[in-house]
Amino acid sequence: MPTVQACAHPEQDARVRAVFDDIRATRKTDFINNMWRYLAFDPELLEQTWREVKEVMATPSQLDPMVKEMLYVAVSITNGCGYCVHSHTAAAKARGMTPAQHAELLRIVALAGKTNQLALGLQVPVDAAFDADASPR
Amino acid sequence: MPTVQACAHPEQDARVRAVFDDIRATRKTDFINNMWRYLAFDPELLEQTWREVKEVMATPSQLDPMVKEMLYVAVSITNGCGYCVHSHTAAAKARGMTPAQHAELLRIVALAGKTNQLALGLQVPVDAAFDADASPR
Amino acid sequence: MPTVQACAHPEQDARVRAVFDDIRATRKTDFINNMWRYLAFDPELLEQTWREVKEVMATPSQLDPMVKEMLYVAVSITNGCGYCVHSHTAAAKARGMTPAQHAELLRIVALAGKTNQLALGLQVPVDAAFDADASPR
Amino acid sequence: MPTVQACAHPEQDARVRAVFDDIRATRKTDFINNMWRYLAFDPELLEQTWREVKEVMATPSQLDPMVKEMLYVAVSITNGCGYCVHSHTAAAKARGMTPAQHAELLRIVALAGKTNQLALGLQVPVDAAFDADASPR
Amino acid sequence: MPTVQACAHPEQDARVRAVFDDIRATRKTDFINNMWRYLAFDPELLEQTWREVKEVMATPSQLDPMVKEMLYVAVSITNGCGYCVHSHTAAAKARGMTPAQHAELLRIVALAGKTNQLALGLQVPVDAAFDADASPR
Amino acid sequence: MPTVQACAHPEQDARVRAVFDDIRATRKTDFINNMWRYLAFDPELLEQTWREVKEVMATPSQLDPMVKEMLYVAVSITNGCGYCVHSHTAAAKARGMTPAQHAELLRIVALAGKTNQLALGLQVPVDAAFDADASPR
Repeated sequence: MPTVQACAHPEQDARVRAVFDDIRATRKTDFINNMWRYLAFDPELLEQTWREVKEVMATPSQLDPMVKEMLYVAVSITNGCGYCVHSHTAAAKARGMTPAQHAELLRIVALAGKTNQLALGLQVPVDAAFDADASPR
Repeated sequence: MPTVQACAHPEQDARVRAVFDDIRATRKTDFINNMWRYLAFDPELLEQTWREVKEVMATPSQLDPMVKEMLYVAVSITNGCGYCVHSHTAAAKARGMTPAQHAELLRIVALAGKTNQLALGLQVPVDAAFDADASPR
Repeated sequence: MPTVQACAHPEQDARVRAVFDDIRATRKTDFINNMWRYLAFDPELLEQTWREVKEVMATPSQLDPMVKEMLYVAVSITNGCGYCVHSHTAAAKARGMTPAQHAELLRIVALAGKTNQLALGLQVPVDAAFDADASPR
Repeated sequence: MPTVQACAHPEQDARVRAVFDDIRATRKTDFINNMWRYLAFDPELLEQTWREVKEVMATPSQLDPMVKEMLYVAVSITNGCGYCVHSHTAAAKARGMTPAQHAELLRIVALAGKTNQLALGLQVPVDAAFDADASPR
Repeated sequence: MPTVQACAHPEQDARVRAVFDDIRATRKTDFINNMWRYLAFDPELLEQTWREVKEVMATPSQLDPMVKEMLYVAVSITNGCGYCVHSHTAAAKARGMTPAQHAELLRIVALAGKTNQLALGLQVPVDAAFDADASPR
Repeated sequence: MPTVQACAHPEQDARVRAVFDDIRATRKTDFINNMWRYLAFDPELLEQTWREVKEVMATPSQLDPMVKEMLYVAVSITNGCGYCVHSHTAAAKARGMTPAQHAELLRIVALAGKTNQLALGLQVPVDAAFDADASPR
């Protein structure tokens, strides 16, 4: 149940149409997931968001595309964003994440959630060795 | 400033000594970071935590060791755990993370934080296409 | 799906009735949203919560009523509370939030989510200039 | 480093004085911790916050005072509020929390952090058996 | 709607069968809630998770079983994990939590959420008195 | 203590210099706060972040500049980002936020933190009335 109304015919707006066309071309699929359909309530917000997602996630870079989606899933789980957990888990699978890798992703994300709680509960002082400014340049 | 007192001589406890020895052997370094020094206030909690961290993070698995540390950093940032951001950023660097990869990690983690907010603000309904139970087996 | 049972006839309890009457009078509507219906499982918790919400949100103050609801939405998004995102987005709209202002609210909330991640990932030291105690009195 | 300036002589304000006196009387100590000193920048906010903390935490109730402080610590860890982790861990110790109980608190809080991540990562559907509204009245 | 497919016949896997049998024996019920059914997609993750939950939550310890479930609920609420709020609220009720205690749990968890925001908003400096390392040994 | 090293002479890089110059010109001050100094470890990340912050926060728009900073503070508190709480509280004060408005901001942010916990603890079902898709177009 959304907080804004989905447009009945979003692609009647030329800017929305252009973004949707680019999503289809970039992803090589006709499927436009709901995130974009609802962001279309404000074409400028849609454009900006897609431009950034395309640049960061769909452009060849230092990191493997599957790894990038796994990092996205890790943040989305921790923020409790169910929609994003779904869309980026699907994206990671589409980029080759096997069930065993999915399980390992969950194991790491869960362990981090656990030791984050321990470190915050103990209020462990940061070791001087971790100070990047103290490293030799 | 911690919530428990660091032991003056933690390794006088045989269980703590055994864990610290295993940390040194596993990591091939004499450095024991504060997390373990403060967890030593309860030797059983120390043992359990180290056993799990070693199993998940220091055992060859489906994912690259550097990627595993980056996933840990992603969760730690999102949970606002400064200690863990430091210790796992250092670990990722030790496993080869370059400054360019560090910047890309931050870019993805930041973008995920951004679009998580958008999806939660819009309360975007999850697409039926993402339902794993609906997929053909 | 709630964790407590909605009362079938909550207004048979005099304290619940009094709160619901005050909600209707304050908001000039017959609609009592689910938050209050479920809080009614404990009339004292209902009374205390409504008293505080009324005092902070429904009493003329230093800030504009629409702005107050937008601040509430910002926190609710960040905490991942879907119910509260819905109820306070509706309240902000009722106090005049236009679609363009809604989009801007989301843009700011999303950008803050993004730069929060960057500052936490970098563990940026707080500038001395931000120390309120260091300011001239 | 705070965002508001600590008052040099907060008790020159009669309302602040009254709250500080009540804190000292209620807690049977002369120590006023920083939370109250900084809240004093707005005497009304100080009054309201102390009134509620006193009512919920310092009044005999259904739950044991030590347990109440442990619950407070659990939330504060999860929200990453270092100040509150400190003040309520100290309060739990003052109400009798032993090091073994402290370790157990951390173990539970850490395990919850872990399985929260798993449930959110899997997006586990809530069992119909957990629907309070479906229970026989 | 989950991110992994529930196994049609999970207990055909001997490891899953053994865990489910142990859950039924430990809890003295035939009901296996969804968390375990979905974790069964990776039998090792299922085994590890159940082993730890059993050890921490179902083994006699320093804290009362109902209190342990309430602590679990406190973390789960704060992390926004709806599934875990449900399963552990049900567990706390099964261990004797009355509606009045449930209301008190919510009151404390809500107050902590409130004062966490105040302390983080004010960035209150931690009192030297809270430094465990500074205490006499 | 940061996770990347501050550049000794960041403005020797032409891209960093250009961003810093634009920050100084836009804000009409010589003060460059640490966020930008540390982001300078990756000039492209610095450029992108500043471009977006400038566009969203420093360009005339639908919302009042002070309100925009208050929304930023609300998110930053809830995410537990101390750096961002400081920098945006300072920015809100620079745009006219009085101590009374600061107190009110904290009161709303704290109340939202409280009722978010209540709604999540009760798992209150979203009212059908809040479904934007169900509204008449």
